[in-house]
Amino acid sequence: MRHLLSTRTLGRDEAILLLDVAEDMADVATREVKKLPTLRGKTVVNLFFEDSTRTRISFEAAAKRLSADVINFSAKGSSVSKGESLKDTAQTLAAIGADGVVIRHPASGAPQVLADSGWIDAGIINAGDGTHEHPTQALLDAFTIRRRLHGTASRGKDLAGVRVTIVGDVLHSRVARSNVWLLSTLGAEVSLIAPPTLVPADTSAWPARVGFDLDEAVDEGPDVMMMLRIQAERMQDSFFPNSREYARTWGLDDTRFARLRPGTMVMHPGPMNRGLEISSAAADSAQSTVLEQVTNGVSVRMAALYLLLSGDREES
Amino acid sequence: MRHLLSTRTLGRDEAILLLDVAEDMADVATREVKKLPTLRGKTVVNLFFEDSTRTRISFEAAAKRLSADVINFSAKGSSVSKGESLKDTAQTLAAIGADGVVIRHPASGAPQVLADSGWIDAGIINAGDGTHEHPTQALLDAFTIRRRLHGTASRGKDLAGVRVTIVGDVLHSRVARSNVWLLSTLGAEVSLIAPPTLVPADTSAWPARVGFDLDEAVDEGPDVMMMLRIQAERMQDSFFPNSREYARTWGLDDTRFARLRPGTMVMHPGPMNRGLEISSAAADSAQSTVLEQVTNGVSVRMAALYLLLSGDREES
Amino acid sequence: MRHLLSTRTLGRDEAILLLDVAEDMADVATREVKKLPTLRGKTVVNLFFEDSTRTRISFEAAAKRLSADVINFSAKGSSVSKGESLKDTAQTLAAIGADGVVIRHPASGAPQVLADSGWIDAGIINAGDGTHEHPTQALLDAFTIRRRLHGTASRGKDLAGVRVTIVGDVLHSRVARSNVWLLSTLGAEVSLIAPPTLVPADTSAWPARVGFDLDEAVDEGPDVMMMLRIQAERMQDSFFPNSREYARTWGLDDTRFARLRPGTMVMHPGPMNRGLEISSAAADSAQSTVLEQVTNGVSVRMAALYLLLSGDREES
Repeated sequence: MRHLLSTRTLGRDEAILLLDVAEDMADVATREVKKLPTLRGKTVVNLFFEDSTRTRISFEAAAKRLSADVINFSAKGSSVSKGESLKDTAQTLAAIGADGVVIRHPASGAPQVLADSGWIDAGIINAGDGTHEHPTQALLDAFTIRRRLHGTASRGKDLAGVRVTIVGDVLHSRVARSNVWLLSTLGAEVSLIAPPTLVPADTSAWPARVGFDLDEAVDEGPDVMMMLRIQAERMQDSFFPNSREYARTWGLDDTRFARLRPGTMVMHPGPMNRGLEISSAAADSAQSTVLEQVTNGVSVRMAALYLLLSGDREES
Repeated sequence: MRHLLSTRTLGRDEAILLLDVAEDMADVATREVKKLPTLRGKTVVNLFFEDSTRTRISFEAAAKRLSADVINFSAKGSSVSKGESLKDTAQTLAAIGADGVVIRHPASGAPQVLADSGWIDAGIINAGDGTHEHPTQALLDAFTIRRRLHGTASRGKDLAGVRVTIVGDVLHSRVARSNVWLLSTLGAEVSLIAPPTLVPADTSAWPARVGFDLDEAVDEGPDVMMMLRIQAERMQDSFFPNSREYARTWGLDDTRFARLRPGTMVMHPGPMNRGLEISSAAADSAQSTVLEQVTNGVSVRMAALYLLLSGDREES
Repeated sequence: MRHLLSTRTLGRDEAILLLDVAEDMADVATREVKKLPTLRGKTVVNLFFEDSTRTRISFEAAAKRLSADVINFSAKGSSVSKGESLKDTAQTLAAIGADGVVIRHPASGAPQVLADSGWIDAGIINAGDGTHEHPTQALLDAFTIRRRLHGTASRGKDLAGVRVTIVGDVLHSRVARSNVWLLSTLGAEVSLIAPPTLVPADTSAWPARVGFDLDEAVDEGPDVMMMLRIQAERMQDSFFPNSREYARTWGLDDTRFARLRPGTMVMHPGPMNRGLEISSAAADSAQSTVLEQVTNGVSVRMAALYLLLSGDREES
C-alpha cells in the first residue's frame, strides 16, 4: 500500500488487511511496553491546514508507539498561510526527509493532489479533506463494528449483512462518505437519514439507501446507528433550523434511543454535541462505542502507518 | 501514589518520598547521558487549558528524560475551546492510551474532578488549577530549601523549624496555598504577608500566621523569604494600588533585601517582575534560589511522573 | 566549536569542517535507519521569537535524527510575550537542562547576547536574528554549491573562484549578509544586485561588489544566481515599487533565466514568491537547487548540532 487517500478506491482485501493489522496493533497496546521499534528512524509529519487536536494526537500517539519521529506542522502562522503553495510545502517536507505525511486540508482532493504530484515520495494519509473523505475514521468505525460483533475472532472477517444507519448532515460529512464506501465494500447495508436539504446530489450513485424519517429508521432496528456531528458553524446556514428543532427531528434523543433494539450499536465520531445530535444517555450507554472508536483509532492509524512506511511498502 | 492533586492531602511520608526520589533524579541530571529508560512506552499528555510555556517545558523535559512519549495538547483552538466537556476530553485521552495527564486549568478543582471521575485511569498531575493549588511548585520549593540546608545529606529530612515568609497576593496564589500546606506538613513555620484585601477569608484555618507588615517580617530574620509573582492583569483590579505603590509597600526592594540576614534564602516561582515584587539585586544575589528552583522543578516532576507512572503505581 | 552565531566570524577551517561533517550527515540520510545515537540524552530547545515553520522543522528533524530530545518553545503567548526578559528565559532554559538552543529573534544580535551573557552554558545556534545573520542558511547554500560542483569529492574543498550573484532586498536580508561573509571566506567572488534604496550603507566594507543592473549581471554569466525572498510586508514600504514593477526590474523572470549560462545554478532560500522574485520555470528547472538546499539544510544543521553538542565541545 502506498497511500491511504480514500475508502472509495480501497479494495475489500486491502480493507481487511488494514483491519487485521490493526488487530495486531491493538494487541500491542495491551503489553507492558506499548511500543514497537518498527518505524525507528522514520519521520512522520502531521501537516494540518485545519485545527483538529483529536485527530492530530491520535496520529501522533500512533506514530510514536511505532517509534517514528513526529513533527507537527500546523499551517496557521506558517509561510503556508502567507500564500506558499501546496507544492512548495510538499517539496519542503520531501527535502526534509519525511517518510509519511498525514494531511488534513479544507480542500477536497488535496491529499490526492499530493499523492499524484510527484512532489514528494512519502506515504500520504488523508486525515480529512474538505467534505470529501476521512478514511481512517471509516476504518476505525469498521474495526469497532467488527470487534463488537466478533471479538477476538475478528481477523479475516468482513461486515456482510450488517445494517448500518448513518444520520445527520451527510452533505458536508466526509465521515459519512468514507463510511458509505468502506462499509458497503465490506458487505454492510448502509442507509442514510438526512434532512432533504443536506443530502448530496449524487447519492443515487452511492451504495446506500437514502431516507428522511429518523423514527422509521429507528423502528427498522438497525445493527448500527451512527450519528454525525453537527458543525455549530453550519447552524447559521439557511440549511438549518435552529438547534432545538434539529435535535427534535434528527437527534438520537432519549425516546428514540429507548426504542432501539438492545443490540444496536450507537456510534459517533466525536466530539459530540450532547443534547443536539445525541443525548447523554445514548452517548454513555453500554451500546455506545464512542470510546472504543477513539481507542481503535490509534490501532487503525498504527496499521496504516505501518503498512505505508515499513519496509514492505509497494512501489508506485 | 495514584495522583498528585494537592499538597493539602499529601502526608509527610509521601512528601518526603517525593523529595527523596527527586534527589535520585537530580543525580541522573549530572550523568553523561541524562536519560533513564524507566517510562519507555508510556505516554504523558500535557493538557493545558491555560498557556504556561515554562511549566509545560519543565514537565516535557522531565517526561522525556524518563523516555516517555509526550503529547502536547493545548486547549486553544481545539474542540475543547468549542465547548467540548472535560469529560469528553478526558475519555478521549484515556482511549488514546494516556498513562499520565499533566493538567493546567483555570477552574479550581478541575484536576480533582478528573481524578475522581472514572473517565480516565491515568495518573493525574495538577500543574496549576485556578487559585487552588500547584503542588509540584511547592514540592520544588521544599526540595530547594532542603538542599540549601542539607546539601547531599538531604534524603529523609524534613523542614522542622524552618521559618518561611511568603509575601504578596496570597488571595489569588495557588503557589502560596500549595506551599502553606506542604511546608507546614514538613514542619516549617509559615508566615504570610499580604495586603489586607488580598488575604483569603479562610486563612484562620491555615497552618500559617498572617501579617501585614513586610518590614517587620524582614526584621524577624526568616530563613526563607518567598516572593509571589504579581499578575499584571490584576493590577487593573481595585484590589491593587499602582505598581510603584505596590513595589514600595510589598516588594523585596534593595533596602529590604539588604536588611535580611545573610543566610536568608530569597525565592520566587518565576517569571519575575523585576523591580516590582523583587529587585534585580535580590533576584540575582547568592541568596536567591530562583534558578535552582527551575532546575529542581525538572527533578521533582521526574519524581512525580516516576511514582505515578512506573510499575509500582498503587491501586485506587 | 561552542556556538554558531554568524558567518562573519567563522574561519575558513571551521567552515570547511562544518561542511565536511555535513557530508557525513548527508550519508546517514541515505541509510535504512536514518538515525544516529550521537545526541541521546541531550535536549535541544527551539526558541522561536518569530514564526518560521520551515526553519523550525528543519532543526527539529536534524536534532531528532541525532536522537536528541527536542522542545519547541514559541515565544507567542508565553511569559516572554508578557515582558519576560531574554535573561530570565535563558536562565530558565539553562536550569531546565538545555544543551543546545536554536534561537530565532527579531532583534539583530540577540543570539550573540545570549552566547556572551553567561546566563546559559548551552551551545547557541543563530537561526536568524533581525536583519543580521542566518548562518545555517549560508552554510547550506555553500554546501549546495560545493556538492553541485564536486559531487561526492567535495570534502575538504572550498569555493575558490566561484562567481556568485545575490539579487534583491539586500538591506533587510540576513541571508545575504551571512552568504557574503561565508562565501567570500571560502574564496568565492560575490556580487550584490539590489535596488539602490535597498543597499546597506556599509557595503563598502563588505567583501562583495555592488551593482544595480540585473540584466548586466545575468549577461556576465555567473556560476550562481541567488534570488532573495521578497517580504510581502515590505511591499507597502515606500522603498518598494509595486510587485509587478519589482518583478520586471529585479526578478529572475523567464527571459532572464533563458539568458543565463546553462551551467548557472539558480538558488533561493525559500519560501519562494513565484512570479515575483523568481519565475516558476526558473524555480523548477534543472539548474534550480531549491530542493537540494532544503535537504542540505537538515545535514548542515545536524553537523552544527553535532559539533556544538557532542562530547568534543570546546571550552569557552
